[in-house]
Amino acid sequence: MYEGRTAAEPGIVFGHENMGVIEEVGSAVIEPAASAATALCCPSTWHAGSARTAWVGLLGFCTTVNPGFAGGAYGYVAMGPWVGGQAEYLQVPFVDFNALPLPAGDEHEADFSLLADIFPTGYHGAELAGVRPGESVAVFGAGPVGLMAAYSCVIRGAAEVYSVDHVKERLDKAEQIGAIPINYDEADPVEQIKSRRNGEGTDKGIDAVGYQATSAGSSAAGGEQDEVPNIVLNQLIDVVSPTGALRIPGLYVPADPGGVDAQAAKGALLINFGKLFEKGLRFEPPVQRQELQRLLA
Amino acid sequence: MYEGRTAAEPGIVFGHENMGVIEEVGSAVIEPAASAATALCCPSTWHAGSARTAWVGLLGFCTTVNPGFAGGAYGYVAMGPWVGGQAEYLQVPFVDFNALPLPAGDEHEADFSLLADIFPTGYHGAELAGVRPGESVAVFGAGPVGLMAAYSCVIRGAAEVYSVDHVKERLDKAEQIGAIPINYDEADPVEQIKSRRNGEGTDKGIDAVGYQATSAGSSAAGGEQDEVPNIVLNQLIDVVSPTGALRIPGLYVPADPGGVDAQAAKGALLINFGKLFEKGLRFEPPVQRQELQRLLA
Amino acid sequence: MYEGRTAAEPGIVFGHENMGVIEEVGSAVIEPAASAATALCCPSTWHAGSARTAWVGLLGFCTTVNPGFAGGAYGYVAMGPWVGGQAEYLQVPFVDFNALPLPAGDEHEADFSLLADIFPTGYHGAELAGVRPGESVAVFGAGPVGLMAAYSCVIRGAAEVYSVDHVKERLDKAEQIGAIPINYDEADPVEQIKSRRNGEGTDKGIDAVGYQATSAGSSAAGGEQDEVPNIVLNQLIDVVSPTGALRIPGLYVPADPGGVDAQAAKGALLINFGKLFEKGLRFEPPVQRQELQRLLA
Amino acid sequence: MYEGRTAAEPGIVFGHENMGVIEEVGSAVIEPAASAATALCCPSTWHAGSARTAWVGLLGFCTTVNPGFAGGAYGYVAMGPWVGGQAEYLQVPFVDFNALPLPAGDEHEADFSLLADIFPTGYHGAELAGVRPGESVAVFGAGPVGLMAAYSCVIRGAAEVYSVDHVKERLDKAEQIGAIPINYDEADPVEQIKSRRNGEGTDKGIDAVGYQATSAGSSAAGGEQDEVPNIVLNQLIDVVSPTGALRIPGLYVPADPGGVDAQAAKGALLINFGKLFEKGLRFEPPVQRQELQRLLA
Repeated sequence: MYEGRTAAEPGIVFGHENMGVIEEVGSAVIEPAASAATALCCPSTWHAGSARTAWVGLLGFCTTVNPGFAGGAYGYVAMGPWVGGQAEYLQVPFVDFNALPLPAGDEHEADFSLLADIFPTGYHGAELAGVRPGESVAVFGAGPVGLMAAYSCVIRGAAEVYSVDHVKERLDKAEQIGAIPINYDEADPVEQIKSRRNGEGTDKGIDAVGYQATSAGSSAAGGEQDEVPNIVLNQLIDVVSPTGALRIPGLYVPADPGGVDAQAAKGALLINFGKLFEKGLRFEPPVQRQELQRLLA
Repeated sequence: MYEGRTAAEPGIVFGHENMGVIEEVGSAVIEPAASAATALCCPSTWHAGSARTAWVGLLGFCTTVNPGFAGGAYGYVAMGPWVGGQAEYLQVPFVDFNALPLPAGDEHEADFSLLADIFPTGYHGAELAGVRPGESVAVFGAGPVGLMAAYSCVIRGAAEVYSVDHVKERLDKAEQIGAIPINYDEADPVEQIKSRRNGEGTDKGIDAVGYQATSAGSSAAGGEQDEVPNIVLNQLIDVVSPTGALRIPGLYVPADPGGVDAQAAKGALLINFGKLFEKGLRFEPPVQRQELQRLLA
Repeated sequence: MYEGRTAAEPGIVFGHENMGVIEEVGSAVIEPAASAATALCCPSTWHAGSARTAWVGLLGFCTTVNPGFAGGAYGYVAMGPWVGGQAEYLQVPFVDFNALPLPAGDEHEADFSLLADIFPTGYHGAELAGVRPGESVAVFGAGPVGLMAAYSCVIRGAAEVYSVDHVKERLDKAEQIGAIPINYDEADPVEQIKSRRNGEGTDKGIDAVGYQATSAGSSAAGGEQDEVPNIVLNQLIDVVSPTGALRIPGLYVPADPGGVDAQAAKGALLINFGKLFEKGLRFEPPVQRQELQRLLA
Repeated sequence: MYEGRTAAEPGIVFGHENMGVIEEVGSAVIEPAASAATALCCPSTWHAGSARTAWVGLLGFCTTVNPGFAGGAYGYVAMGPWVGGQAEYLQVPFVDFNALPLPAGDEHEADFSLLADIFPTGYHGAELAGVRPGESVAVFGAGPVGLMAAYSCVIRGAAEVYSVDHVKERLDKAEQIGAIPINYDEADPVEQIKSRRNGEGTDKGIDAVGYQATSAGSSAAGGEQDEVPNIVLNQLIDVVSPTGALRIPGLYVPADPGGVDAQAAKGALLINFGKLFEKGLRFEPPVQRQELQRLLA
């Protein structure tokens, strides 16, 4: 979206993680909870609540709200003409289906803001990977989504969660929530994880980085970043054990104006597909079901 | 519903299998297909399209349309105040979520009428039982739902489908669609099926009969019926092989004013639970997902 | 097994929760880990490792080890002629498939003994019920299996776990591991749970009691017990919310010489089936997959 | 394996689709069916029947039979030292777990030979893709595996099965078994399929081609073949509808001495990953469960 890495046009109103208080209720709204003055958290991707994808729980892929495309979102490139939340008022379409009425009071307000995108997106990585009690998981990326993915693995009972990043503050936070920090600037993260596991890989892997992945040597604190858009995907293929699962809440896009080469600009990445195949690894992008919403409803 | 076997009050307008042509479209309807003059088939159980049960595909258990209860339907006892289709006009609530726009023309009109209830209910028995190519299935009941259940098993590639009933015309129809007819008036249906399978049971079983089940000796052509409400459930426990699945599109109710005894009147049935447990049989009532609707959408 | 409640013959050697050190390895054993002097934990139900049920993970239902029956176990009624572990030496059949080699040392020896039966059986209740982060669960029974079931729900991230029993020490232990104790001698446990949840039921329910269930008023510390074999099953049907799941690691048997009446002696129980059906509850006995073994392997 | 496209060493005895009559039974065999003179079909990939991957049904990924690798097979590169079946006698390891005893007689002998590899591999593509009644499927490749995949979709009730190839005899056979033939030498196969579906893609897609895929213009009857190892994968990403599934029984390898370029020689392929991600497509290589074996057992 940012840094010229998408096809965003000037004038777009950004803001896809929204929360607020109802000012006015549309005439077609039937859900009793949506009365005036209720606080709502508004998940970033939403659905008209009709059509096949709603029936089967594929809430991120509505074919009605954004004709010719599967999926709609607030203020998001290619996700429809809907205005984002960096504004005074926000129209919440299909509010019956797409908003979480919040409990009264503002005690947990900061926590609830995570429900618009960051927590469910991270959680969904753990959900798609089917993380279970006793398993080991490698989570690449310890930004907001990666931290929530790692935390979700902990909640689900994982025995070992490796959190891979190179920013000290992020790794400290990862350790604080129960993950094992792996700094990829220090050594190959795959080797670091395997050496802690007697040479074995992990049961599961989660990519919370996406197409702007960087290789070792780059630094958030300065220096040059070497962007290597396929590095995390191939590291996951390497670190996850045969018949394991690797899941991808990180973002990959079909058109990247700032891609490192002509292929990356088209969203085409060199994947170690033979290795993936030999190991029998399952591979799934975020067919989002907004799990946390489901639990809150 | 009928024969005084439910708590239906005088004045209820029945009719839960509906089909018709749109006369007028409500102002809140957004789904483009629902334009005037389109023919619609209206599934019997429906959903407001909001709330948790929609998000997870449990379309028969809406908690919004019928407050205090899970599930709503047209003209149906305990399923809400909605009027049924034995009338000139019908209001179709939440039409975006609950109606199947039909193709133009009336060539398949008679077939499409089966989509309101009979075909998806029967199909759902095969779906819940997870019927797969090569499997054997015992389907109790060869009325409309039972025949559609048997036919659905055939569509899904089952190798042997046994259709149990005692009405000759039904059994003839079952044979015509590829099932093996078993007349329970002739001998114990469980023994008949096992003797055709070298003493083995079946992989799966479907109850398309429900609480008005009758024992052998009764006859649709005359004579007295001996109602034995638990007979089909216990025969399924007997005929399905260990670790198999038995699923129940047939209707069981929590209150039956015409029940054969005080327990049956409360919907309490004597189940061979120790045997069910020993054999490790999974047991599932129709948590309806309206599979055929999904495929048509 | 005990108290004359099964068809156990005099002379049977009991003992289905076994652990020990390898004295001698049979000539057909190929799994490298099974070398002499290794300590093993031996799961109570076991499998020859061949035949269809192994291929699909139904490890409790081997059709080879105990001809004419699905499932084998050490020193267990109807589960085959295999001798139990209340003996100096134990033969471990099909050891490649059925034993967990333990890490060296005896530090966790007491914990590992739970892996033979109690922990996986309790865990399996949570697994079959599909307990997920944020859910509420009612666990009936706080004996060893019930406590491990409750603890497994906590591990899996359940938000509220109710532990129902009437023995103070058990309820204290339940509270200690993170569950909410419910004493059914004090009041109807279903009402106690619903009143803590604003009248709502729970997402899931687990029966860790089985056919020797007792009603309120009975006491482990003295007084008369009123055995009501169907009471827990019907309380689960009552407390679990529509479309929820109820799973049963508790034991039900097809023949109970000490049953409270003629029906119970045949394993036939009066189940509120109409209510189960109306609520769309899924129902599953323990088709055991020994999940913890899987994770340890 | 062939044409110098794998790391096969001189002296390897090929032959991974085997069938024969038992001459001698090893002393450790316990499964009653495996008596002398019984005919057996021997699935190409096999398993020791112990260890975690057997417990969870991942029969193609045994970690015991071929130390340091997940999976073993007869006479197959990297799949262990086991001799193949192009020989007078064949040793069948772990026969209890890995062979299908065949019915007496030779009436279906030719059919049964398909069970060693071709039919289960093709069927497994349909299984992994979750092909259901009423769905549309694009199957790339109409060689033996592709035809069996297409036929498996038909058995499972698919409404439209497209079979993509450029060899006339294969396409004729595809049509004969109920598929719609698409000749990719005539026009872009994705466009051909979409134009028959009013511009829509298919619900599911199966790659039964693998890394030796060729582009249009090449010809089996002569002329030069242009090998394009990623062409089928990217065509699947293009033709399958959003939230659909694409599954891959076709073979991809981590080392291909005859690869068209340095990347292909390492099994690295340029995948339209951004598009895959945007469409929410699930992606799964053949984590083989040998479904047909399961059904036959």
